[in-house]
Amino acid sequence: MPELRKDPIVGRWVIVATERSKRPDNFSLVPVESMPEKPCPFCEGQESQTPNEIYAVRSPGTAKNSPGWQLRVVPSLTPFLRIEGELDRRGKGMYDLMNGIGAHEIVVETNQHIGNMADLSEEQIKRVITCYIERINDLEKDKRFKYVLVFKNYGWSAGGGRVRHARSQIIATPVNPKRVKEELVGAHRYYEYHERCIFCDLVKQEIQQKDRLIIDLDGFIAVVPFASRFPFEVWILPKRHSCDFVNINEEERVNLAKMLKQVLQRIKVGLNDPPYNYIIHTAPFRRAKLGYWKTINEDYHWHIEITPRLTRVAGFEWGTGFYICPVAPEAAAKFLREITVT
Amino acid sequence: MPELRKDPIVGRWVIVATERSKRPDNFSLVPVESMPEKPCPFCEGQESQTPNEIYAVRSPGTAKNSPGWQLRVVPSLTPFLRIEGELDRRGKGMYDLMNGIGAHEIVVETNQHIGNMADLSEEQIKRVITCYIERINDLEKDKRFKYVLVFKNYGWSAGGGRVRHARSQIIATPVNPKRVKEELVGAHRYYEYHERCIFCDLVKQEIQQKDRLIIDLDGFIAVVPFASRFPFEVWILPKRHSCDFVNINEEERVNLAKMLKQVLQRIKVGLNDPPYNYIIHTAPFRRAKLGYWKTINEDYHWHIEITPRLTRVAGFEWGTGFYICPVAPEAAAKFLREITVT
Repeated sequence: MPELRKDPIVGRWVIVATERSKRPDNFSLVPVESMPEKPCPFCEGQESQTPNEIYAVRSPGTAKNSPGWQLRVVPSLTPFLRIEGELDRRGKGMYDLMNGIGAHEIVVETNQHIGNMADLSEEQIKRVITCYIERINDLEKDKRFKYVLVFKNYGWSAGGGRVRHARSQIIATPVNPKRVKEELVGAHRYYEYHERCIFCDLVKQEIQQKDRLIIDLDGFIAVVPFASRFPFEVWILPKRHSCDFVNINEEERVNLAKMLKQVLQRIKVGLNDPPYNYIIHTAPFRRAKLGYWKTINEDYHWHIEITPRLTRVAGFEWGTGFYICPVAPEAAAKFLREITVT
Repeated sequence: MPELRKDPIVGRWVIVATERSKRPDNFSLVPVESMPEKPCPFCEGQESQTPNEIYAVRSPGTAKNSPGWQLRVVPSLTPFLRIEGELDRRGKGMYDLMNGIGAHEIVVETNQHIGNMADLSEEQIKRVITCYIERINDLEKDKRFKYVLVFKNYGWSAGGGRVRHARSQIIATPVNPKRVKEELVGAHRYYEYHERCIFCDLVKQEIQQKDRLIIDLDGFIAVVPFASRFPFEVWILPKRHSCDFVNINEEERVNLAKMLKQVLQRIKVGLNDPPYNYIIHTAPFRRAKLGYWKTINEDYHWHIEITPRLTRVAGFEWGTGFYICPVAPEAAAKFLREITVT
């Protein structure tokens, strides 16, 4: 019997079609490598192919926009939003709009031509995490911005383009994305009723129940969510309550890097190096104004959502208006738990 | 300058990246034909390949589950939900779930092996519309169901499988899908403020403003929505206010069939026969219980949303948590307006 499961945070019902469950090798996976590659503008020595760097981790004595770096942040070559200008909020009859002001930056995670973050060292991944934090803190100073989305598109069908060089994207926006608001509202509703953080409760239940737990390590857990939208969806949550990703300390950065590498390696090895996305979910800036979000420090909890893109099966929601997950979360967790990575 | 546009109904901000605008031939389109076909279980003469029919339009004197039909509805071979059983709503710690009770039916739109609904006659399309209405009315009698989703997945990357035989899907669910609730809530909020239906206002503004209007014909309009999530997204709206798709009369069925064929033909001809989805948005059943949805007859307005699936560009939201539409809605409308179809 398939199940209808409700996401406890945003209240979304998902069909978990356990009987349709397929083993990963039954999916028609499109490996990342299947699209012809384009010349890489992100390798060391190709600095002239990108706009001037915004941030870099460099060897002492090397000049900006020249070789000698380990990580670099540059403006997007094809930005979704523009940094210069006024918001100019306005109406057009019944419609509301504003100028597409924002920042769109690319974090080049390594000077080497490595495609999957799973193949970076823990030290390199930690450097990426620190970079995210420093960029978010810097972008917060711009009073026009309300939110910074940090995400990764790996592989062609995850929107990652045809350059296989590990990178993530940072978008600062003058509005709070709808999915951020929904999470905040849902977490607040739970807090009002229970006077507890819903994510802290989730972490406890998953550790106790074990059947959706993949890894429990050094202050973080990786789980397949109860009401997964996508097969092999994975959430990484910190055990220590905090609504702000930017507040994690040095030790937590080390441990998060270790956890990210573990999870991404298992996805790579177990699911044939699939395309994937991840998004860091963290509280918005300037929340003093957010009304019922006054308790956000207590009721929201930052985390990372990782979604492998297994061709076709991920597209159900498009057609149906309903998320349909063809792999039981417990089966996905068991599968990922049993993968051995080095 | 890109624009941030707000969907007036659900309040979703969308980045309309007008500067990234591409002509349709710049997309890496994956034509529907590119995947090898499977043997067709939906053609006349193959009735034994499907479960017993639930509904059919047949020539007089022909027997059920035998040739002689023009349209057939059968249970899905791979149902997302099961018709037999109790809902058994229950909790599992902090989580809520219920059995996956529901109906999942396939509307086989023609006895001939034609893939795209665009290539059916207006009469055939009208027969499909009538069938939707009769099936919704029948499913409403089952007290376990709250909503019936009617949708179409055409082509491999729209979730349409590898059989090129025109069909749509009907799913009856015991819960109201989140996106339905969001629309109802948004439409209600507008109604409370303006005492007018937001969709009626939208129809008027689009007819007057003209730049997103594709077709205005016999009581229906086809427009590219102001805050499109996807390139070349099209909405078909009736001018006559009604919250219920099932209440359209005989003449409206004829006119809707004409409009659907027009729109689907333009998408096929203009965009190289792309995969697409459509979903009929209509009010839920048993709404007496819905609290603040008491004014639903006045404030909600049924319509159809059609989304071509142009490879890659449609996946932005996955990665970013934000819908990014790489084609300006006005450019998409102009393009589709100027396509000549016979």
